[in-house]
Amino acid sequence: MDVDEELFQALRSGDRGALARSITLIESERIADRQRAHALVARCLPWSGRSLRLGVTGIPGVGKSTLIDVLGMWSIQQGHRVAVLAIDPSSVRTGGSILGDKTRMERLAVNDAAFIRPTAAAGNLGGVARHTREAVIVCEAAGYDRIIIETVGTGQSELDVDRMTDLNLLLMIAGAGDELQGIKRGIMESADLIAFTKAEGEAEARAKQAASDLRNALSLLPKRPSGREAGILLTSAITGVGVEALGTRIEAMYQEDRASGQVDERRRDQSAHWLDQAIIMGLQAQLQHHAGVNALLPALREAVRSGSVSPFAAADEVLALFRKGDGPLL
Amino acid sequence: MDVDEELFQALRSGDRGALARSITLIESERIADRQRAHALVARCLPWSGRSLRLGVTGIPGVGKSTLIDVLGMWSIQQGHRVAVLAIDPSSVRTGGSILGDKTRMERLAVNDAAFIRPTAAAGNLGGVARHTREAVIVCEAAGYDRIIIETVGTGQSELDVDRMTDLNLLLMIAGAGDELQGIKRGIMESADLIAFTKAEGEAEARAKQAASDLRNALSLLPKRPSGREAGILLTSAITGVGVEALGTRIEAMYQEDRASGQVDERRRDQSAHWLDQAIIMGLQAQLQHHAGVNALLPALREAVRSGSVSPFAAADEVLALFRKGDGPLL
Repeated sequence: MDVDEELFQALRSGDRGALARSITLIESERIADRQRAHALVARCLPWSGRSLRLGVTGIPGVGKSTLIDVLGMWSIQQGHRVAVLAIDPSSVRTGGSILGDKTRMERLAVNDAAFIRPTAAAGNLGGVARHTREAVIVCEAAGYDRIIIETVGTGQSELDVDRMTDLNLLLMIAGAGDELQGIKRGIMESADLIAFTKAEGEAEARAKQAASDLRNALSLLPKRPSGREAGILLTSAITGVGVEALGTRIEAMYQEDRASGQVDERRRDQSAHWLDQAIIMGLQAQLQHHAGVNALLPALREAVRSGSVSPFAAADEVLALFRKGDGPLL
Repeated sequence: MDVDEELFQALRSGDRGALARSITLIESERIADRQRAHALVARCLPWSGRSLRLGVTGIPGVGKSTLIDVLGMWSIQQGHRVAVLAIDPSSVRTGGSILGDKTRMERLAVNDAAFIRPTAAAGNLGGVARHTREAVIVCEAAGYDRIIIETVGTGQSELDVDRMTDLNLLLMIAGAGDELQGIKRGIMESADLIAFTKAEGEAEARAKQAASDLRNALSLLPKRPSGREAGILLTSAITGVGVEALGTRIEAMYQEDRASGQVDERRRDQSAHWLDQAIIMGLQAQLQHHAGVNALLPALREAVRSGSVSPFAAADEVLALFRKGDGPLL
């Protein structure tokens, strides 16, 4: 049995270390690792697809981690196993947040039915980590049936996440600037549920008002493709208010979309998009390992730096060389 | 004189319509347009580089557009010409925000010394529009010497913007959740100035407190590469408080960085990064126009959709075909 078959078997048996190592392999950009990772994901594919894939997004400070902690615990109480893939859009330079906010998933972090994986989002392909989709597959093969993809808003990342989830939850906080002016249609459209967080104590009344304002605003928008209106709820990770209602609502939406075939249809579209992304990533890898390009690039980069060659002219030179095909194929 | 030489001459003469048409050309993904766009940008390059390129970022609702309006007007009063490139991370589906927030640059929008260009950020390369860097060049060639790139935070987009600006301004609002927990190092590191917006009326005291808290927090961070601490200011677009101080501070930092050679050094590094990006974008374009790939892709995509072929296997097939080189070169 080769090493990756062993890894796969350990993963399937529920070995958390094997799952962690698998995701590390998936995130590696080394050519040899990419091939192993592709094989591993392909091996996992038949065991995947049976989970609820939930995107959770919201601005920094909205309380994503704390809400995921209580929501995840609720799911575990319903008999599920929960994997959280947290995309951290942090510094390319230093790679970390000031306060390590994963520690705020206090209860999930120590629960045997939960797996938490923070991933740096650095890279060319936007706010969502390049290999998150693959990580979802291996988490599913490892027996997790509730997958939460946490990402910071607000912008491109929601659209990326929308391409790998079944349902999306947008977290908002009352009083964070004007609730309406900044909310773009795209984000509203991809959110199946919107929860106002921290609806506790004296902030509760404000959250109620904000939820009511938002309901009015949403009623002005064109109907969503699904025909379903976004649900708006109030939650508090501290008092627990709204958490069960939120969890129940998510489960009900998922069962409804499963029954109607919408989950399957959506996932088929997502696979097609995944193909497009895999092609681009493969091209980038080929380029990075092309002998001729590697030989030419340093001098060319210096010429561009000094201003003697324009970036386009230099790029054209690289592309012409790449297409000559004198580098090793992958 | 061919049509693009005419466009270039009109652009250089300060014709705003020509500038708008140039950016439309730059944003076009048609192969023929790309080549024209590259030629136009190359033609503009010698007339570029003399502006202050400022990135302005912040979460939705923080008041970016209104602050840019007053800051831009201040710059115009100093004798500058201001171009605002506003990256709109809005819906791929509907392409717009609920409230068209460019209308909030009320005064700039009608000022002859200002040019405002909103651009959709949709695309694979993150929150910043693919061609923003090129748009900066043509704006400079058109005589604008203060370029503002506005983008929504918080995440990847700041890092992208940081690769095309001289200075970055982060806008924050007091009371939008916990000021600290969500602020990632990367964003703090790339911000040269942090301004709390809406510091007016009863919110002013809160903004003062937030600024003071943030100062304390920043003092705990490692020194920035520049050795310079991020400046923290209070501003109000309504009362005008802090706007002149902010503008003066930005100008002073820019003159300092010009004198020390840091602007030039930074731009050289940015050019090298631009090359990398131009190569990837060129590859994508080649792929999109490869006859063999175009013939194969629909069936392959269908196979992936139905689950009979894995995305990786399909991608490998496409890549092998692409490298055979039987498609037309660009």
